[in-house]
Amino acid sequence: MIRAVVWNEGLHERDNAKVREIYPDGLHEAIAAGLRDPDGGEEIAAETALLTDPEQGLPEERLAETDVLLWWGHRAHEQVDDAVAERVQKHVLAGMGLIVLHSGHFSKPFLRLMGTSGTLRWRVAGEAGERERIWPVNPGHPIARGIDDHLVIEGEEMYGEPFGVPEPDETVFISWFQGGEVFRSGLCWNRGAGKVFYFRPGHETFPTYRHAGVLRVIRNAVRWAAPRGGRHAQKVWRVPAEQAPEPVWRTAEAAL
Amino acid sequence: MIRAVVWNEGLHERDNAKVREIYPDGLHEAIAAGLRDPDGGEEIAAETALLTDPEQGLPEERLAETDVLLWWGHRAHEQVDDAVAERVQKHVLAGMGLIVLHSGHFSKPFLRLMGTSGTLRWRVAGEAGERERIWPVNPGHPIARGIDDHLVIEGEEMYGEPFGVPEPDETVFISWFQGGEVFRSGLCWNRGAGKVFYFRPGHETFPTYRHAGVLRVIRNAVRWAAPRGGRHAQKVWRVPAEQAPEPVWRTAEAAL
Amino acid sequence: MIRAVVWNEGLHERDNAKVREIYPDGLHEAIAAGLRDPDGGEEIAAETALLTDPEQGLPEERLAETDVLLWWGHRAHEQVDDAVAERVQKHVLAGMGLIVLHSGHFSKPFLRLMGTSGTLRWRVAGEAGERERIWPVNPGHPIARGIDDHLVIEGEEMYGEPFGVPEPDETVFISWFQGGEVFRSGLCWNRGAGKVFYFRPGHETFPTYRHAGVLRVIRNAVRWAAPRGGRHAQKVWRVPAEQAPEPVWRTAEAAL
Amino acid sequence: MIRAVVWNEGLHERDNAKVREIYPDGLHEAIAAGLRDPDGGEEIAAETALLTDPEQGLPEERLAETDVLLWWGHRAHEQVDDAVAERVQKHVLAGMGLIVLHSGHFSKPFLRLMGTSGTLRWRVAGEAGERERIWPVNPGHPIARGIDDHLVIEGEEMYGEPFGVPEPDETVFISWFQGGEVFRSGLCWNRGAGKVFYFRPGHETFPTYRHAGVLRVIRNAVRWAAPRGGRHAQKVWRVPAEQAPEPVWRTAEAAL
Repeated sequence: MIRAVVWNEGLHERDNAKVREIYPDGLHEAIAAGLRDPDGGEEIAAETALLTDPEQGLPEERLAETDVLLWWGHRAHEQVDDAVAERVQKHVLAGMGLIVLHSGHFSKPFLRLMGTSGTLRWRVAGEAGERERIWPVNPGHPIARGIDDHLVIEGEEMYGEPFGVPEPDETVFISWFQGGEVFRSGLCWNRGAGKVFYFRPGHETFPTYRHAGVLRVIRNAVRWAAPRGGRHAQKVWRVPAEQAPEPVWRTAEAAL
Repeated sequence: MIRAVVWNEGLHERDNAKVREIYPDGLHEAIAAGLRDPDGGEEIAAETALLTDPEQGLPEERLAETDVLLWWGHRAHEQVDDAVAERVQKHVLAGMGLIVLHSGHFSKPFLRLMGTSGTLRWRVAGEAGERERIWPVNPGHPIARGIDDHLVIEGEEMYGEPFGVPEPDETVFISWFQGGEVFRSGLCWNRGAGKVFYFRPGHETFPTYRHAGVLRVIRNAVRWAAPRGGRHAQKVWRVPAEQAPEPVWRTAEAAL
Repeated sequence: MIRAVVWNEGLHERDNAKVREIYPDGLHEAIAAGLRDPDGGEEIAAETALLTDPEQGLPEERLAETDVLLWWGHRAHEQVDDAVAERVQKHVLAGMGLIVLHSGHFSKPFLRLMGTSGTLRWRVAGEAGERERIWPVNPGHPIARGIDDHLVIEGEEMYGEPFGVPEPDETVFISWFQGGEVFRSGLCWNRGAGKVFYFRPGHETFPTYRHAGVLRVIRNAVRWAAPRGGRHAQKVWRVPAEQAPEPVWRTAEAAL
Repeated sequence: MIRAVVWNEGLHERDNAKVREIYPDGLHEAIAAGLRDPDGGEEIAAETALLTDPEQGLPEERLAETDVLLWWGHRAHEQVDDAVAERVQKHVLAGMGLIVLHSGHFSKPFLRLMGTSGTLRWRVAGEAGERERIWPVNPGHPIARGIDDHLVIEGEEMYGEPFGVPEPDETVFISWFQGGEVFRSGLCWNRGAGKVFYFRPGHETFPTYRHAGVLRVIRNAVRWAAPRGGRHAQKVWRVPAEQAPEPVWRTAEAAL
């Protein structure tokens, strides 16, 4: 049983009737419902958290009991407390998985873990939508499991290269857009004991999180990112000279 | 001609007579002197910058004209302004090289670019020193040029694994310590258009920056990290639908 | 239940009394016994295969039902049929895990999968032995699970850098040797749908495969390398122009 | 002055009038002419070599004096001697650069260096052609220098993912195809002391090697891949116990 938490800023649903129509219970509930879908793989217990919750939904105790955190944010990246972003980063380094969705490329936790700009190309007035084709570059990767040939999303917002991220440890998907651009849409990084996966689709004005293939990828990613051992907090080891594994005193003497 | 700037917090030299005796002009001047050493390779123009300089030695205009920045810091990481660290990060992503030395593993610019903890193992009371052997893992790498077999430093402070950094793009050196530990002591990362090299040796109470092999590696690294084109600032490309490389209107219509 | 096969050339045990004394049933049986050790993790069903078996122990049907192959070879690399090496490579690319042990760095399957020389430094007359310390560089990695601080092997043959392999996808262990050298002793690569792990210790004249920590690492590695989906044979996709996902005829016409 | 050799199997030009019309002096001469184009960067001295030359154009002495080898092959991969492929591999590991063009993804030297299948998706009857857009994913990379936004080739053969190669050390370009596919069309790997770059475009029935942007990329790649030091042949270091950097005798004694 993998314990997942879907975090959402939850503002588009509040302010935009079109988004509310597509996701009446919020983007987070659509994603969580997808995680709960029994597909024969390891079971996922999915909860949700919102920017407006106490401690922005991510108190220390909750993160300590989360295997994989999913992050959807767009308009309110700056409203996320630095302390919350730092807390998420710390838990990822200690082993918690992190799935960053769509516009989360500019979120504080993602940028802190990447160290880069997160910049990209995008379609202004992209809400009209265009066709996206998501191609696996390694059909044998666990995150691509169950994808037959490639995924097609009829209407999505375009994101294009260059994408300002470090070279990934593994590239899983690349997207083709009708308008002529391409984007590395599924990327894996190891950071400390934790795994990070960025997955591109999911603009709020499209029913992308009801697309069976997209939800399958997200379930796959949660299982891939779940820690397989306990947490390993990053720490400093102080080793006094007299406790060194091998004797060092002679050099010390010589150095005097 | 490569334009290098050696940044140093400059506090140990001020407060510690032993350090002052080894480096009467400061660690930065010893490193800069090493960079100026004519060894037949591309010439390096080396300047220095100090924490106590105006704008902590690194105003925007200066970074804009710097090819490679070298960073030595230890006690005063917290005194470095976040704005300065962010500025350094921005210039690295746009193409400036960055060489992080020794205790700079905990410096703000390095941690911002890595996204990890920078934690490691170290010898308490390590100032007595022990022998370090620095082995190239790829003798053909440009940063290992001119190293005959391996480098030996008779007295240094031990740093040991685990080192809390992302998997490097290239591992160049690994250190053996007399006390029984090992450390990945020369590591390369690409970040945006810039290159980052971490090089381990250089505790302030040892004459490490007078060691010919260590200085050779640092010169090699500066030449490796120097940008070979102009700067490429990370940016967002906004592409209106009517300016997409290929027509997208039909999908847009279909989506309405 | 993971199906593992331990392959061994089996010649040292036949010809050398000292090796036979340490491993009366052969190196392969010692390794297989380690895999069968119930440690609370996923169960491993371990079989063995020998160079002298029909089809050198690795017929097509057997590889097709093997999740993870372990390889110990030293003297007889050249005796392994090219067809067997190619078959192993093909199954790894399709998803079979491969654990290459010690002197397997020069084996045909490993060199075929790496594309490099596999060269390294070693201690002549190394059979006298020296102390090896195996340090995790990422204690949170699944292959390092259960290792407390680091492993110590009192007597082993030294292998030192430079090790002629591609930069690994993940570095898990680095070894310290009493004689002054270091070696990247636990390295991971993804190749196609398969995972490859090289693990250094295991010279035939030492009881290394009775060392609890070494056996723990090998069990961890088998679980890490086991494929989590079916096989994905590498293949060519031929897509006729009229079956392209999007229409291509207009360009074709324009090109005439 | 970089010494480059453009190798070509040279059969399509001989047998196909359309190819001969586009490349009357052969694909190799078109590529070599592009390398000689003075663009203000480091000068490249370009020679050519053919499958039909003595020793298939690549005798040991010639490779020893070659900085970067470019490879175009398609129909005759099997005719390349294993000894020639092994020789190329050896020189790459020692520092020679290798640029593999288009259908060279199935060439012996490339597959030997990658260790993977080189398989991909392609358009049957692709000679009608379709539009390809080649996007830089890192505009600051030296191989992308001088590319304004992206390259457009009006008619090319489609290659699509999955591409059976190891995760690259750096991804430089990704291609968009009119027919709906994507492909990682510019990929970098370090192998030993040498650098390998795969660049996708260049089907023989299109005038791709007269496209200014394509030729610019190839020149950039040659400069990137040129070795910056001497050759470093991969070798084994044998270190007798009595010549170990640190004394090992005591453990040896203890082990008896």
